[in-house]
Amino acid sequence: MKINFTKMQGLGNDFVVIDAINQPIQLTIEQIRFLADRHFGVGCDQLLFVEKPISANAEFKYRIFNADGSEVAQCGNGARCFARFVRDKGLSNKDEIIVDTDARQLALRFDAGGLITVDMGVPALEPKQIPLNVSEQSKLYKVKLAEGEIEFAAVSMGNPHVVILVEDVVSAPVLTIGARLECHELFPERANIGFMQIINRRQIELRVYERGAAETLACGSGACAAVVAGIEQGLLDQEVQVHLPGGELTISWVGNGLPVLMTGAATTVFEGQITL
Amino acid sequence: MKINFTKMQGLGNDFVVIDAINQPIQLTIEQIRFLADRHFGVGCDQLLFVEKPISANAEFKYRIFNADGSEVAQCGNGARCFARFVRDKGLSNKDEIIVDTDARQLALRFDAGGLITVDMGVPALEPKQIPLNVSEQSKLYKVKLAEGEIEFAAVSMGNPHVVILVEDVVSAPVLTIGARLECHELFPERANIGFMQIINRRQIELRVYERGAAETLACGSGACAAVVAGIEQGLLDQEVQVHLPGGELTISWVGNGLPVLMTGAATTVFEGQITL
Repeated sequence: MKINFTKMQGLGNDFVVIDAINQPIQLTIEQIRFLADRHFGVGCDQLLFVEKPISANAEFKYRIFNADGSEVAQCGNGARCFARFVRDKGLSNKDEIIVDTDARQLALRFDAGGLITVDMGVPALEPKQIPLNVSEQSKLYKVKLAEGEIEFAAVSMGNPHVVILVEDVVSAPVLTIGARLECHELFPERANIGFMQIINRRQIELRVYERGAAETLACGSGACAAVVAGIEQGLLDQEVQVHLPGGELTISWVGNGLPVLMTGAATTVFEGQITL
Repeated sequence: MKINFTKMQGLGNDFVVIDAINQPIQLTIEQIRFLADRHFGVGCDQLLFVEKPISANAEFKYRIFNADGSEVAQCGNGARCFARFVRDKGLSNKDEIIVDTDARQLALRFDAGGLITVDMGVPALEPKQIPLNVSEQSKLYKVKLAEGEIEFAAVSMGNPHVVILVEDVVSAPVLTIGARLECHELFPERANIGFMQIINRRQIELRVYERGAAETLACGSGACAAVVAGIEQGLLDQEVQVHLPGGELTISWVGNGLPVLMTGAATTVFEGQITL
């Protein structure tokens, strides 16, 4: 079986994208793992399959698989790569693309400069929703570690995020504190740990220790969580530029009950053909 | 500039291979680094360029670049991928291919099963040639580390190798002892540290801590060095199957003053096109 694929990346989070509409395929877990393998296969963080829609108002459905073959419901960087893919391949010429995912329907918008905005959903701040093992909701929580007491905010963007304010993101103890907090008993489903340095009310630097993946180049939902936490604490404006190791995102949030919007680039790296 | 490339691997050591004869290109160090980047580019351990020969008796020249943009003289896994590439692309149909490299001319031979044999050169055992900071040549040397005294053989295959006999390669302290010995004062140019478990006189298991790269999936020159050291100690026959984490190699050595022959597979993973 010969497969055409496109290698893409959003802030260094990289994807093998496959048009499964014009090229109907069913891959086994072993084939997905092989494609994702960086030495023996193509290599990527995740595989993204573009499929026919389920809903009448959607143009497409997409499905995302991790390198280990497990399926994930959605991914902000993947959503932008998907939008860039269907536009570049001539599968859609609309400025707003409605797409079904296993989690929910998404609206993706192109701006004039070619950046793509993804509706990342409404953040949840209640401890039960995060989930966070405390009885009362607060803007800041405290935890005692061997390294000392740490103050943090907690936000769910569909997945649990901790946001810690630091003076200097470069020297922040991302690996040590990240690993320790990720699996702390406060977080029954573990947590992604973000370290945020505030440059000014419209710009932050951010490093994220991701659940199950250690530090990554860019975590889209982590950027959203950090900005929500900063706005909640009165430190940030409604639109914030987030500088991550892999690149830049713009995060907008008007406030409680409304969705967070994430805007950023998606890049096609190369076209490939592989025989499985 | 649009470039066609082929992604290949030999025992998991992976290469972006570019036909620079039918597609004349000059890449900058930045472009090489970009192509080798596993998140933002294509991703590979090394880039291999197939060029016109310099010598009258050679069919080709090849050049190999590390992911950091530095050029290396040769590489056993790369030589096999090169041979597979020129055959699969119809650039040569010979069973023996003569190729110029920056180090020396190589003869690469296909066997009936499609495996490729590379002449890896004559091993050097004198301390000065390795280089090893001792006054007298010996089949085994000793070094005192915090972990205890370690006995090792030393072989140069154009690069310095240490070979340590272990009872069980899986539980061998590859990362700790490897890192400690790599930079030990005994080795003025540092060293690759191999951990060899002898299965029988014709089979070994091998893990290698590579100079500047930590543990790798497969080190061709390390496999040669281990077999030479085993033969020198009277533990191995002249033809030995070497099991490495990335796959298998067959190493043959008739003895002093003669070259070591390495036989193994090379695999095409996919074809790609990228715009630089």
